[in-house]
Amino acid sequence: MPTPSAELFSRLKTGDLRAASRLMSRAESHDPATIATLGEIYKSAGRAHIVGLTGVPGSGKSTLVSRLVSEIRKSGRKVGVIAIDPSSPFSGGSILGDRIRMTNLVLDEGVYIRSMATRGSTGGLAKSALTAVDILDTAGFDVIIIETVGVGQDEVEIARASHTTMVVSAPGLGDDVQAIKAGILEIADIHVVSKCDRPDSNRTITDLKTMLAMGINISIKDQSNKPVWQVPVVGTSSETGEGIDKLITTMDKHREAHLTSELGEERLKRIAEYRTFKTAEDLLRNRFFDSTSERISALVEKISKRELDPFTASDELLGNIAF
Amino acid sequence: MPTPSAELFSRLKTGDLRAASRLMSRAESHDPATIATLGEIYKSAGRAHIVGLTGVPGSGKSTLVSRLVSEIRKSGRKVGVIAIDPSSPFSGGSILGDRIRMTNLVLDEGVYIRSMATRGSTGGLAKSALTAVDILDTAGFDVIIIETVGVGQDEVEIARASHTTMVVSAPGLGDDVQAIKAGILEIADIHVVSKCDRPDSNRTITDLKTMLAMGINISIKDQSNKPVWQVPVVGTSSETGEGIDKLITTMDKHREAHLTSELGEERLKRIAEYRTFKTAEDLLRNRFFDSTSERISALVEKISKRELDPFTASDELLGNIAF
Repeated sequence: MPTPSAELFSRLKTGDLRAASRLMSRAESHDPATIATLGEIYKSAGRAHIVGLTGVPGSGKSTLVSRLVSEIRKSGRKVGVIAIDPSSPFSGGSILGDRIRMTNLVLDEGVYIRSMATRGSTGGLAKSALTAVDILDTAGFDVIIIETVGVGQDEVEIARASHTTMVVSAPGLGDDVQAIKAGILEIADIHVVSKCDRPDSNRTITDLKTMLAMGINISIKDQSNKPVWQVPVVGTSSETGEGIDKLITTMDKHREAHLTSELGEERLKRIAEYRTFKTAEDLLRNRFFDSTSERISALVEKISKRELDPFTASDELLGNIAF
Repeated sequence: MPTPSAELFSRLKTGDLRAASRLMSRAESHDPATIATLGEIYKSAGRAHIVGLTGVPGSGKSTLVSRLVSEIRKSGRKVGVIAIDPSSPFSGGSILGDRIRMTNLVLDEGVYIRSMATRGSTGGLAKSALTAVDILDTAGFDVIIIETVGVGQDEVEIARASHTTMVVSAPGLGDDVQAIKAGILEIADIHVVSKCDRPDSNRTITDLKTMLAMGINISIKDQSNKPVWQVPVVGTSSETGEGIDKLITTMDKHREAHLTSELGEERLKRIAEYRTFKTAEDLLRNRFFDSTSERISALVEKISKRELDPFTASDELLGNIAF
C-alpha cells in the first residue's frame, strides 16, 4: 500500500527529500487523494524566496543557474531548482559539461533539483511547478529558483509568478532571437547579462540601460510615489564566475525592498490569483476530458468529414453548465 | 450597425479579403454572435493544403516562409500565412530586411498574411489560428502555412495540426538551442535545413539523415506495411534561393502520398479531435472565467495570506459541475 500523503507531509516538514519527490510526483499525476495534502502544504509554505529566471534560448540560463546554486550554497542557504526549460541540463535536453558540473550539486543535501517536461504535459504545468515550489518551501528550502525558457505564454507567466523575476540576456544572439527577447524584458526585476567575459557584452549592457533610462520599468514606485526598486542590469560570467555574488546580493536586496512594500503585497495577491485560476482551470479541464472523451471520439468522424463543426460540437458537449 | 457575420461569410466565399480579416478578428475576440458562422465556415472548408512550419528560434523560418510564398505564387496558387511565432516578421518582432521583402508580397492579392500574438492571449491560440485557416480555405486559398516557433506546448501542437509538417533546422546554433530542437524533430514530415549555402550545413543534413536512418520516423507505413512516406531532408538557402522549388515539390508530394492514404484519414481525425478539444476547452474556460472572476477576487486576499489554499478554493468554485 502506498504511504498516505498526510504521512509524507509530516516527513516533508522534517526536510525529508524522498517525501518531497513523492509528493511532487503525485501532484504531477493529478492524484486526487493528494489534493487535500497539497492544500495543507500550500498553507504551511510562504517562507522561501521564490526567484523566477527566464531568458531566450542561447542566453546561458542553465549554466548561470548552476553557478548561482553553488554560490548561494556558500552562505549555507538551501536551494531548490524547478527547471521547466526544455534546454535545461536539469530537464534533460543536456550538454555534457553542464551535466558534469551538476553532479557535484546533486550530491549536496542542501540542493534539490526537479525537472518538468513541457511537452506532453496536459496543460497543468503552472500548477505542477508552483506546487513543487510549495513542497520545497515546506521542506525548509530558503531559495527556490524556477527556470523557464522565455518563449511560450505559460513559460513566461510561470517565471512571473515569483518574488523576484530575473531575465537573462546574452550578447551575440541572432536578430530573431533578440526579437523574442523584447517580449520578456518588461517582466524583469533584475536584468542579467550573461557571458560578460565577452567583449560584445558591453553593448548588450548599454542597450538594456538605455532602454531602462527611456522609461521602461526604470523604477517601481509605491503609492506615495517613492521609488521602491530601480531595475538594475547585472553582468555575469559563468566562465570566470564574475558577477555571480553581486547577482545574489541584488536578488536579496530586491526581496527586501519589494516584498515588504505595499507593492509586494499586491504582487503576492496577483500570484495568488494566478495560481487559483490555473488550479481551477486544470481541475476543470481534467473533469471535462475525463467525462467527455468518449463522446468526443464518437463525434470525430463527422467533424473530420466536415459534416459537423467543432463549435456546435463543443456547445453540445458543454450543455448548460454554469458555475 | 456592424455587418452581420452571415453576410461576411457570403462575401468570404467570393474571395473577399476584407471579409476574411473581419471574421478573423471576431473569432479572436470570442464574439458569440459569430460562432454559428464559424461553424458554417468550418463545414465549407477542407480544400486547401495546410502546411505547418516550425523550428527553433534562429533557424531562419521567417525568411524561408517569405521565399516559399513568393515561389508558390509563381505557379498561380494563392497562399495564406498564419504567423504565431513571436520572432516572425509577420507577427511584429521584426527584422528590417524581412519587412522590406514582405512588402512585395503584401501588395499581391493572392497572398494573405495574418499574425497572432502568443503573449497576452487568453489561451485560445489554437482555436484562433485554426479558425483563421478555415477562413482562408473558404476564401479560396490553395496553400495555407501556419508558422510557429518550436518552443512551447501550444505552438508545437498547432504546427502538428496540419496536413504536412515541416521542421526547420539550421547549422551553427548553440547547444542549448539544439537541445530544444530534439523535442520537435519527431513531428516532421519533411526536414528542412535552411542556410544550406553555409559550409557547415552539410553536417546538419548528415546528422538528420543519420537520425532518420536510425529509425526515428524513417518512414510512415500503412496497415499493409507499405511505406507511404519516407521523411526527407531538404536543404534550402533563403540567400540564394536554392532548394526552395524542391521543397515545394516535396510538400506537394507529401500531400498526395499521405493524405490519400488510410494514414491520412487517421491524421484528419486526430486534427478534428484536437480542434474539438481545444474549442471546447476555450469555451469552457471563457464561461468559467466570466462567471467566477469576481468570486476569485474575493478569495485572493485569504489565499495570498495562506489562510486558504487554491485547491480548496477551486473545488468550491467548480462545485458539482458535471458534463
